[in-house]
Amino acid sequence: MAHLTPITGIRLGSCCAGIKSSPGIPDLAIIEIPSQSTFSCVFTQNSFCAAPVTVAKQHLSASTPRYLLINSGNANAGMGDTGLSDVAECCQILSEQTGCNQEEVIPFSTGVIGERLPVDAFRTAIPEALKNLSADGWLAAAEAILTTDTTTKSATHQVTIDGKTITVTGIAKGSGMICPDMATMLAYMATDAAVSSETLDQCLLDCVNNSFNRITVDGDMSTNDACALIATGAANNSIIATTDIEDYIKFNEAVEQVCLELAKLIIRDGEGATKFITIDVCNGLDDQECKNVADKVANSPLVKTAFFASDPNWGRILAAIGSCDIHDLDISRVSVYLDDVCIVSNGAKHRQYLEADGQEIMGQNEITIRIDLARGNVNTRHWTCDLSYDYVRINAEYRT
Amino acid sequence: MAHLTPITGIRLGSCCAGIKSSPGIPDLAIIEIPSQSTFSCVFTQNSFCAAPVTVAKQHLSASTPRYLLINSGNANAGMGDTGLSDVAECCQILSEQTGCNQEEVIPFSTGVIGERLPVDAFRTAIPEALKNLSADGWLAAAEAILTTDTTTKSATHQVTIDGKTITVTGIAKGSGMICPDMATMLAYMATDAAVSSETLDQCLLDCVNNSFNRITVDGDMSTNDACALIATGAANNSIIATTDIEDYIKFNEAVEQVCLELAKLIIRDGEGATKFITIDVCNGLDDQECKNVADKVANSPLVKTAFFASDPNWGRILAAIGSCDIHDLDISRVSVYLDDVCIVSNGAKHRQYLEADGQEIMGQNEITIRIDLARGNVNTRHWTCDLSYDYVRINAEYRT
Repeated sequence: MAHLTPITGIRLGSCCAGIKSSPGIPDLAIIEIPSQSTFSCVFTQNSFCAAPVTVAKQHLSASTPRYLLINSGNANAGMGDTGLSDVAECCQILSEQTGCNQEEVIPFSTGVIGERLPVDAFRTAIPEALKNLSADGWLAAAEAILTTDTTTKSATHQVTIDGKTITVTGIAKGSGMICPDMATMLAYMATDAAVSSETLDQCLLDCVNNSFNRITVDGDMSTNDACALIATGAANNSIIATTDIEDYIKFNEAVEQVCLELAKLIIRDGEGATKFITIDVCNGLDDQECKNVADKVANSPLVKTAFFASDPNWGRILAAIGSCDIHDLDISRVSVYLDDVCIVSNGAKHRQYLEADGQEIMGQNEITIRIDLARGNVNTRHWTCDLSYDYVRINAEYRT
Repeated sequence: MAHLTPITGIRLGSCCAGIKSSPGIPDLAIIEIPSQSTFSCVFTQNSFCAAPVTVAKQHLSASTPRYLLINSGNANAGMGDTGLSDVAECCQILSEQTGCNQEEVIPFSTGVIGERLPVDAFRTAIPEALKNLSADGWLAAAEAILTTDTTTKSATHQVTIDGKTITVTGIAKGSGMICPDMATMLAYMATDAAVSSETLDQCLLDCVNNSFNRITVDGDMSTNDACALIATGAANNSIIATTDIEDYIKFNEAVEQVCLELAKLIIRDGEGATKFITIDVCNGLDDQECKNVADKVANSPLVKTAFFASDPNWGRILAAIGSCDIHDLDISRVSVYLDDVCIVSNGAKHRQYLEADGQEIMGQNEITIRIDLARGNVNTRHWTCDLSYDYVRINAEYRT
């Protein structure tokens, strides 16, 4: 795991609140944000979003956050008005303990859907987590937000802007119910850069679109996903805005780097995953058709089980591409590679392809599928994992 | 299995051609069609359709078929020009043996993608299959077209039209790579009714849309799917046309009945399936949004593994509905039932819902999920199965 550089002004505290069914497992984290920070957050696009998502959006429209309150073990989703009042009560407890307004607390939950949030557990845990607030609390918080994940996920990156060293540090959780086209999972990033609010929003949207929105484990969309980015300004650089092209690009690259690292860590820890698969779709007409092809291949149970079996069953890849309904696709121009091995050219099995070559690539733990549509000049890159017995086991046993 | 009533004039022959890797397993079938019959067929919408699909379409545009030539064990897909010339050669062999034109032979293949069709095997097998052509050959043919299926699939239905007893008899194969919105799988149906060509086309489209296009095992679209309907006219009824509303409806119902029975048999034999799940989406605004919701729920790996585990994890059903991007969906009006047990009302856990009641339903082998969107008056019904360890095993081991 990379060394995590703290962000001046950001403090994190965590503890075992007893929300998870197994006792003694950390399940509550608090992130303290200095005043004058800017803040941006993207949320799941699921209509059945959880109560904390609804409340977080309300609070963000009314105020700039001072505390993020995060629990794992219970998603507080599908609970109607009870869920809304429960999360409001938790925010109130934290605001009373810290003297901030209730709207300055942004709640996040992840875990089992459809069970009532144990507010009493928050009542005793919040003071405990506040007591251990620390600039070095990143890794402990990374642990407290996990659910089916098997490892913590964190990343940090530095860049020089305006003569100052700027740090971006982040943590994430996510392993199943991971799907492109929304924030997926929970992720919290902070930087000591000074960034205008609009620029931070733009940067987060761009970076999420190029990272978290291009990974899939199972194509299932969560009710609770969120990804937050805090900019404290402690580095004392001149405020970054989208109009300072050079500085913005540098800053954007640093944030994207952290997002990409976290996104790939989620795929490496995908439920039951035994293989890390990169999908490059090249030379499409536009971004949308490239994404459609990458999504279809990445989510195909038949492609995923073939990867689990280390079987170079390229026919399943062709079948997935062919089901994408791409207008006027000339299949006789399509080629497909596994790493550097050409398996399909001119839309059919490559003449020089030897099963043994495909087999050798499929034996690896990391594999790149390259699909060349040969009809334009747009490229996209997605990441996914295979579908194993353990995916079924983990999700069949989740509530038992 | 239902008794299969033969269709006067239709003869079927089958044999072991040695196309499948296991010897002694039937893998070739021929269906003989009397002259003056009408014929209709729908095919997969996959751009990477197999060579036999391309050739079948060409032959159908040039001629009315006299023979259907079907093999299992090899899909002849992804093989480029070689695949096209191989299937043409097989059609030629059958045409020479029977004295018909090559265009009067319609080829179909199902099995492994990306391996060359063994034309020599057809050379010895076609005469053998022709020798045992018989009006009672339906069940033997049903066996010869199977791949990962564990049972044959057949159905028969009778109806009185114009004072004549009309029979519809059909067989199908299909277990994995099953997805709505195309023909899915292979199915061959025949009737002794006299039906105009245009009416037969309309009837097949309607019936497929209400049956085979509403089932999913894994959401993967095959390269080889086809569904054919032959009408011999041997019953001597006055020719059925869409303009004879009453007769058309009766005939359509009989064909739909056979399609529905075959479609449900495919789901019951879904790869690794342990549960048969009916998904009713009610009170939607239009058919498309009802289908979107049913498809999303039916294809969600998390919903499917919960069913495998007999876990009434209704949160996953809500999450799948919520990810459908239905414009202006008022989630506070949505309700969800497992059989007669209301689990979600007003968009949240139903107040009187007891986990024990949900658990009891989930213990059954057959379960109906009813999703009430409460925003219109359109209903749809789909069928699917659960996702088990065996689905992964079957598809990981398929080529080994």
